[in-house]
Amino acid sequence: MHIDSIFHAAQAAFLAYKNRSGREKGHFLETLAEILESNRATIVPLAVRESNLPEGRINGELGRTTGQIRLFANLVKEGSWVEATIDPAMPDRSPLPRADIRRYLTPLGPVVVFGASNFPLAFSTAGGDTISALAAGCSVIYKAHPAHPETSRKVADCIHQALSACGLPTALFTHIEGGIEEGQALIQHPVAKAIAFTGSHTGGMALFQLANQREEPIPVFAEMGSVNPIFCLPKKCENETDALAKAFVASLTLGVGQFCTNPGLIFVPEKQAEKFERAIATELKDITSAPMLHPGIAKAYYDSIQLLEARNELRWVKAADSRHLINGSPVLAEIKAADWLKDRLFQQEVFGAFAFLVVYRNEEELLKIAQQLLGQLTITVWAELEELKSNPILINLLQEKCGRLLFKGAPTGVEVGHAMQHGGPFPATTAPNSTSVGTYAIKRFARPIAFQDMPQSLLPEALMDANPLGIWRTVNGDLSK
Amino acid sequence: MHIDSIFHAAQAAFLAYKNRSGREKGHFLETLAEILESNRATIVPLAVRESNLPEGRINGELGRTTGQIRLFANLVKEGSWVEATIDPAMPDRSPLPRADIRRYLTPLGPVVVFGASNFPLAFSTAGGDTISALAAGCSVIYKAHPAHPETSRKVADCIHQALSACGLPTALFTHIEGGIEEGQALIQHPVAKAIAFTGSHTGGMALFQLANQREEPIPVFAEMGSVNPIFCLPKKCENETDALAKAFVASLTLGVGQFCTNPGLIFVPEKQAEKFERAIATELKDITSAPMLHPGIAKAYYDSIQLLEARNELRWVKAADSRHLINGSPVLAEIKAADWLKDRLFQQEVFGAFAFLVVYRNEEELLKIAQQLLGQLTITVWAELEELKSNPILINLLQEKCGRLLFKGAPTGVEVGHAMQHGGPFPATTAPNSTSVGTYAIKRFARPIAFQDMPQSLLPEALMDANPLGIWRTVNGDLSK
Repeated sequence: MHIDSIFHAAQAAFLAYKNRSGREKGHFLETLAEILESNRATIVPLAVRESNLPEGRINGELGRTTGQIRLFANLVKEGSWVEATIDPAMPDRSPLPRADIRRYLTPLGPVVVFGASNFPLAFSTAGGDTISALAAGCSVIYKAHPAHPETSRKVADCIHQALSACGLPTALFTHIEGGIEEGQALIQHPVAKAIAFTGSHTGGMALFQLANQREEPIPVFAEMGSVNPIFCLPKKCENETDALAKAFVASLTLGVGQFCTNPGLIFVPEKQAEKFERAIATELKDITSAPMLHPGIAKAYYDSIQLLEARNELRWVKAADSRHLINGSPVLAEIKAADWLKDRLFQQEVFGAFAFLVVYRNEEELLKIAQQLLGQLTITVWAELEELKSNPILINLLQEKCGRLLFKGAPTGVEVGHAMQHGGPFPATTAPNSTSVGTYAIKRFARPIAFQDMPQSLLPEALMDANPLGIWRTVNGDLSK
Repeated sequence: MHIDSIFHAAQAAFLAYKNRSGREKGHFLETLAEILESNRATIVPLAVRESNLPEGRINGELGRTTGQIRLFANLVKEGSWVEATIDPAMPDRSPLPRADIRRYLTPLGPVVVFGASNFPLAFSTAGGDTISALAAGCSVIYKAHPAHPETSRKVADCIHQALSACGLPTALFTHIEGGIEEGQALIQHPVAKAIAFTGSHTGGMALFQLANQREEPIPVFAEMGSVNPIFCLPKKCENETDALAKAFVASLTLGVGQFCTNPGLIFVPEKQAEKFERAIATELKDITSAPMLHPGIAKAYYDSIQLLEARNELRWVKAADSRHLINGSPVLAEIKAADWLKDRLFQQEVFGAFAFLVVYRNEEELLKIAQQLLGQLTITVWAELEELKSNPILINLLQEKCGRLLFKGAPTGVEVGHAMQHGGPFPATTAPNSTSVGTYAIKRFARPIAFQDMPQSLLPEALMDANPLGIWRTVNGDLSK
């Protein structure tokens, strides 16, 4: 099918779908969740084979995917997400009467979604980007990730089944396979209204620049990963060395380190560094290397490490065992904070179970680090309460550098909920005011429209006087149902 | 003062100010509104002299400006705008416990604001962009518009007086004068976190491209105007010819046409066209030409019209009286829809009281027009209820092309309220998901951050269990106070 035909069909499907009720959209999403689950026995082995991820993980990921779909189904069935806001007419206002103005969120149009390699289900074909765009009322042109083509085709079939079952146009979702050129053509097509992407910095920035060079620039929601620093403060590090080392190694090596929230940077106080490193070494002993997503990812991992091996500033706490065709083994390099501060290379993500252990001398150095730190998806602070209280400037600064700030546990494991913020200042994303996980993700694919003096009978239900949907609305500045 | 010093002072001021309470921020804004009003006798004559706008208009604009400041003061004092969202911990959840996650909006940082020439007060120094950024908790580096330097300096003084009176750092607001180079340097400075602009398409796009080419791209909220089409349907046009002609001419010529919501395009049915044009001619007779903002604007207005005079497709219902150094006189050119559809030049804004009157033959042609129409701040539909009901496809399409859809009155006169959407699809703005007028304008200058397992005593008040601010919050997905 020619790209113009694809987009025109997607546009027609969008115009037909966008004004369907939240109930209908929610029903479609629920139907999709059921169909995906009833195909578990087919989908899971496909995804396991194409991603090298263990069956338990993929089974869990399918549950995460359908859970996410149901979360958005409930959101749109309830309906308040549209931010309905009503300023009723004031015909007698002096000196000028006030018109009746009503605002809500309307979907953007056809959206292009790029799948991620490291989540063949939850961030791919029927993943968070596709689902939040469909929930908002957009149509989706989905560019499959070449690392898991069969999984992607199978899930696309499930989406089409769900559309058919609900009497919705199949052009609401189009599954595209191809390489970089095909992806570029999708971004450049004039009918496209937004781009969603999860992947590498290089990939995300290429899309971003292309989208901005269009005759009509369109928003790009690119989640490009980060190094997710952990700041370990002295007392906490002293008091809980073993537990923290255990938590760090578990997070570093989870899924062979192939998470955008993988901790690639940990700041450790000089006094506790040796003890902490010993505890880490103990933990690492039991970690066996495991296959990465595909040989290209493993090669990139070892290539990055090889480049770093030429740097004199680094001391290898745990060196690469050997360069393997597919298995990734954890690697840890120690560096002094003074050296780390001198070169931004040490802030670059190495996709896999690699981290810099940065040894700092004092609070002053910590503040310098916080100032120089690039934007992150997450930052974790391991500190005793008294240490947090005595470092308000540090905590204040760290908030400027991340989308999520943790005070316990590790950054991996992104909860799908209402309060989740999975995003962050550049270069973590190209759109720091958005999230790609959690219910607020739907807002990326909608924009406000105001109706002035629209006849009641023409208004969308969300804005009618009688509030037939029973949603939360802001009327004259006050929230009510 | 060197540009680095300016930004570093703005960053330090921001870090000190952002965590102040909404009460304190609101008090500062109220103080500013009072100071501006107490300087009315100085500010109004300055702005009148520098803008050529009548005293009545400038007096009204000062009222609009202080009204807007108080609207934001109330918004931040009330506090619910931060979208506080809490997913409390579920330590016993199986298979994995849920961490405590709390999200709210945090200000972006130092923001660069460019003033507009056509609103020396309401869209300038203490205008909507500056005020919504300060209300959000940002610091502002303001680039004064060279068309009204003295007005700008005087208002900047008032802002500094208000900051001093409230014990806030003066670097929260910096007033910069200069030309294009100074403006570019502000956009390129690494500490800047966002740009706000109101002005021409050329100006807005230059800023947009510059901001995207930075090492760290930053959001640009550029409102670049539009031609604000009016769609006149046959029955309405037949029934209310005189009243509609009166409304159109009043809107076209208000403020010598120097509004971003000026109607530069009106679609009239073939059968009613002659009668409608006659009614327009009657209305235009009483309009005297008036001085534009400055000679450069008048020159650009007549230059644009001169270019159009070479086009054979146009019939001049009202030609330019004569090219005047400063006065702008209304001009109206008729064109057939079939010709209008052939060239995008006829969609370009001519800043001033100029409009194309486009004569269409039937509904089919109207749909083609709606499809080809570029993004607009506003679209107005003048139609009888039965005509609206029998044209659902047209109404649906028009919603895709604008930020505000009117069914009565004219697009000029942008109400400052909660439901206002002053924005729209590109090329009306570079950020269709935002508004530059109304309370939602504050959201441009904030981004979400989530805190995971943050100790209660460290949480911002908006997110503490006890809800000490008494704001609306989403807890476990449900809104409550």
